[in-house]
Amino acid sequence: MKVCRSIGEIKSFVRSAKSSGNTIGLVPTMGYFHQGHLSLMRLARQECQIVVVSLFVNPTQFGPGEDLLDYPRDFERDIDMASQEGVDIIFAPEPGEMYPSGYQTYIEVGEITTPLCGRSRPGHFRGVATIVNKLLNLVEPDRAYFGQKDAQQVMVIKQMVRDLNMNVKIVNAPIVREDDGLAMSSRNVYLSTAERKAATILSRSLQGAEQAVNNGETDALTLRKQITEKIGSESLADVDYVEILSIPDLEPIQVLNGQVLIALAVRFGKTRLIDNAIVEV
Amino acid sequence: MKVCRSIGEIKSFVRSAKSSGNTIGLVPTMGYFHQGHLSLMRLARQECQIVVVSLFVNPTQFGPGEDLLDYPRDFERDIDMASQEGVDIIFAPEPGEMYPSGYQTYIEVGEITTPLCGRSRPGHFRGVATIVNKLLNLVEPDRAYFGQKDAQQVMVIKQMVRDLNMNVKIVNAPIVREDDGLAMSSRNVYLSTAERKAATILSRSLQGAEQAVNNGETDALTLRKQITEKIGSESLADVDYVEILSIPDLEPIQVLNGQVLIALAVRFGKTRLIDNAIVEV
Repeated sequence: MKVCRSIGEIKSFVRSAKSSGNTIGLVPTMGYFHQGHLSLMRLARQECQIVVVSLFVNPTQFGPGEDLLDYPRDFERDIDMASQEGVDIIFAPEPGEMYPSGYQTYIEVGEITTPLCGRSRPGHFRGVATIVNKLLNLVEPDRAYFGQKDAQQVMVIKQMVRDLNMNVKIVNAPIVREDDGLAMSSRNVYLSTAERKAATILSRSLQGAEQAVNNGETDALTLRKQITEKIGSESLADVDYVEILSIPDLEPIQVLNGQVLIALAVRFGKTRLIDNAIVEV
Repeated sequence: MKVCRSIGEIKSFVRSAKSSGNTIGLVPTMGYFHQGHLSLMRLARQECQIVVVSLFVNPTQFGPGEDLLDYPRDFERDIDMASQEGVDIIFAPEPGEMYPSGYQTYIEVGEITTPLCGRSRPGHFRGVATIVNKLLNLVEPDRAYFGQKDAQQVMVIKQMVRDLNMNVKIVNAPIVREDDGLAMSSRNVYLSTAERKAATILSRSLQGAEQAVNNGETDALTLRKQITEKIGSESLADVDYVEILSIPDLEPIQVLNGQVLIALAVRFGKTRLIDNAIVEV
């Protein structure tokens, strides 16, 4: 597996791969790999001839007071893990390579970025859309892979790709969970032992909601109240949002109908975790 | 020469052209061709194996109260003229093809869009950057061609391409002028006979400034005053801006040094014209 740091190197790698007629899969990541990342690499490995993983803790998607500086990093471990998944090349640029002096262009995606994490983290999706746009332009992949845990992120990127007529298929893969149900996240490492235990309330409350829907509940307000109360029963949990929205437009709904996203963000101490479920009525 | 209206058609044309190993040149236009457009097509014809001309009066780059609905159009004449230049395909989509229902993604380029036309036409460069980004993604050209008359536009697009790591070379070609010096523009057709005659003050005032610079004038304020006064001597002219800015950052300067852009926008009746000169000190 190659590791490259510069735009020149990745471009030259891509040019050579494409001129040999290879298909390319891109897995954009911020590193500190867990099984969720690895599941994306495996899927890319199955579907594409060349697998590129980008590893870049993207400063423009962090707001003031967020965890940019604390974001967990372990480059050597990441390299080992990606290598074992048969990744062909890791592109791990420094911030100044992606955002050189004078940098001033950003992608703004509209309505779909206004609820959920877009509301809690102003500017977050501007940063996400911009860095993904840049990576797609640099790597020119046939397919790019994203985890369903960041449900809104996947939808924002699909919207951007559709709107800007970008030549790539966006693939999303299911959430990978710990044995006790906690969605895998690089940020789980921030949790204290007590918080780690408390955090299982997220997947449990989503499971409860799925069960309620299976039992015929279609009132969004009732479901939302059930979830919020269940999370509220966990004293370490501090709800940021619990939302039930239409797919793919992410608009508020009163009665569940068709595909619906149940999404939540909850703080445990300083750590903000997200999780979600898609239900179909 | 082919004419196509849909994204599906142009994509399929591009895929086929690229799979045969051809280089592609794109000339993005709003139609109503004049010699300026044709000079870009000729350059593309010389430099690329396949020449694509897009013809789309882009609604997102017009502000409220601007001339979107009045913008001059003559599709049949345009087709004839492009065909005579050896263009391979014209892509002329309807607005709904480029901005379908639910469209919501825009490219924002920063500081470089704040002076000049960016100040007079809020949102203009957001629309320009967005449509050019879409066309570059659709046509995947090796080179894209822009006229130097829209000096700030060229610089905004170069900035976007650099910032977003887009895989294309932006080529700009010199302003083409009428015999009396008026810069060719589709909007010249709006001018009354008297306004048309008065409008030559633009190129004459720029020539005067170039002469002053050649004679050693390096004070930006003095030059700006000379140009503004010269234009002011023409009673039909109403100055929007006269600016002297650094290249490529478009920052205000006091003393001319290196490459400098002298840019102006002036109204004649309802018609707003722009012109510019680059001088080197």
